[in-house]
Amino acid sequence: MLMSFVMSPDERSRKIYRCALEVRGYELDSYGHVNHAQYLSYLEHARWKMLAEEGITLKTLAEWKRWPVVAGLEVRYLRPTFCGDELRIETQVTEHRRVAFVVEQKIFRANEPVLTARVEAVIVNEHGKPAEVPPGMAGSLWSPP
Amino acid sequence: MLMSFVMSPDERSRKIYRCALEVRGYELDSYGHVNHAQYLSYLEHARWKMLAEEGITLKTLAEWKRWPVVAGLEVRYLRPTFCGDELRIETQVTEHRRVAFVVEQKIFRANEPVLTARVEAVIVNEHGKPAEVPPGMAGSLWSPP
Amino acid sequence: MLMSFVMSPDERSRKIYRCALEVRGYELDSYGHVNHAQYLSYLEHARWKMLAEEGITLKTLAEWKRWPVVAGLEVRYLRPTFCGDELRIETQVTEHRRVAFVVEQKIFRANEPVLTARVEAVIVNEHGKPAEVPPGMAGSLWSPP
Amino acid sequence: MLMSFVMSPDERSRKIYRCALEVRGYELDSYGHVNHAQYLSYLEHARWKMLAEEGITLKTLAEWKRWPVVAGLEVRYLRPTFCGDELRIETQVTEHRRVAFVVEQKIFRANEPVLTARVEAVIVNEHGKPAEVPPGMAGSLWSPP
Repeated sequence: MLMSFVMSPDERSRKIYRCALEVRGYELDSYGHVNHAQYLSYLEHARWKMLAEEGITLKTLAEWKRWPVVAGLEVRYLRPTFCGDELRIETQVTEHRRVAFVVEQKIFRANEPVLTARVEAVIVNEHGKPAEVPPGMAGSLWSPP
Repeated sequence: MLMSFVMSPDERSRKIYRCALEVRGYELDSYGHVNHAQYLSYLEHARWKMLAEEGITLKTLAEWKRWPVVAGLEVRYLRPTFCGDELRIETQVTEHRRVAFVVEQKIFRANEPVLTARVEAVIVNEHGKPAEVPPGMAGSLWSPP
Repeated sequence: MLMSFVMSPDERSRKIYRCALEVRGYELDSYGHVNHAQYLSYLEHARWKMLAEEGITLKTLAEWKRWPVVAGLEVRYLRPTFCGDELRIETQVTEHRRVAFVVEQKIFRANEPVLTARVEAVIVNEHGKPAEVPPGMAGSLWSPP
Repeated sequence: MLMSFVMSPDERSRKIYRCALEVRGYELDSYGHVNHAQYLSYLEHARWKMLAEEGITLKTLAEWKRWPVVAGLEVRYLRPTFCGDELRIETQVTEHRRVAFVVEQKIFRANEPVLTARVEAVIVNEHGKPAEVPPGMAGSLWSPP
């Protein structure tokens, strides 16, 4: 299936970044629950937080002239969430290549899993072409400590 | 001017509801700052929080068959805000009539004012027609304690 | 890979629903292109259009007490798009089961593919529990004409 | 009241820019109608269209190092709108000063007014400071033909 989460023990040992957020009322759709597209914004938020935790901001990316863009994603929705729900997001880089890396993310409400996602990010340069992951990013996101 | 905030001492003494939120990266627009429309969602969030603080939720509104809708607004934008900024919102009911009430809201980043708003809410029934403010709402939002 | 689009000839013969939309300026993110989450809203729009083309609206769903919700998705992003771009979306039901069905969608700008997606929808009842696809939906979306 | 639309005959003779859009399903909120904040995005879209009609794009603005930002707005909501509604937006510059200008906008569904708005835009330079309206913008938006 889509979300395998089958990784070697070594992969599993990578750092897990955590952040929390509360569902805001304006994020509900006409069904009265958080719209499926909204979660992608939550996940993006958590990835920016991961980068920020390593000192990487939009400004850093502009200096490097290297930006991560989403090239693919797989999401599995497990439970609806509602206004005021407190969500926790776990974010982990689980694969990396020369110009791309994979982030696996999970959203929880208390101990209940809400969603799992696998996001493939590609690094692009100022012309939008694939480019090597900048050392400052690789060094902080997946090198051994 | 749009935002007068000229109220009688009595008005000024009304309860101020406070909430906080952090700007999320996906809320920026192509200018790199929070888009002007996004703030209206922040303000709506703060108004739902105000109601929730008084025990009024979507469920309560459905039981009453009375819902507040925005009939008019005035906003003055004072400063741009950016990803990660911690914002505080102050929300206060400053006028009330039979079928409507006015909420004044201010957003701050630390001590700097970011925005002031005046929102006119009208109560509607299940047919979308103006209807009296439900006693349970009037009683908690603006009656003497 | 994620997006196989390998289907039997029979599958390929199913009806393709088409709709068009123009990228609006407020849908760009701080990178200046359409944000990856925004496309999911475009795809949702195209699925509502598909249902509407078969006479199925939110009102119909409420009468049936059956609603489709997104249970999983896979998206592959192929090209960035920008303000004013005219996009075409092709939407096709490619698999169906008792309580779920799969929609494959492609977005194009002129003849260039922008994105491919595979969306798994589950039908839920008024308690949010999986329920059989309503005959009126199955009959129009995938029965032989 | 907020929306005076009291202008001299000369003002009234200014060019009215028109655009149309269809409400998309994902723009509804948990009330099932278009959320009040969403209309601000529609209005922004119409203002970008007005600029584009005069040959002014994000690229032009970057060359001039001058960008319009929203400094204030007043909106009056007259009717709810729903998924699939065809809306028309009229946009007109009604006042102009050295560093700012005022745009009045109206949204209609068929012949019914949905919303009126008055938006005050300020021109800023690359440091976010108020700056003179670029001649290329003033010349096309409000000079005599």
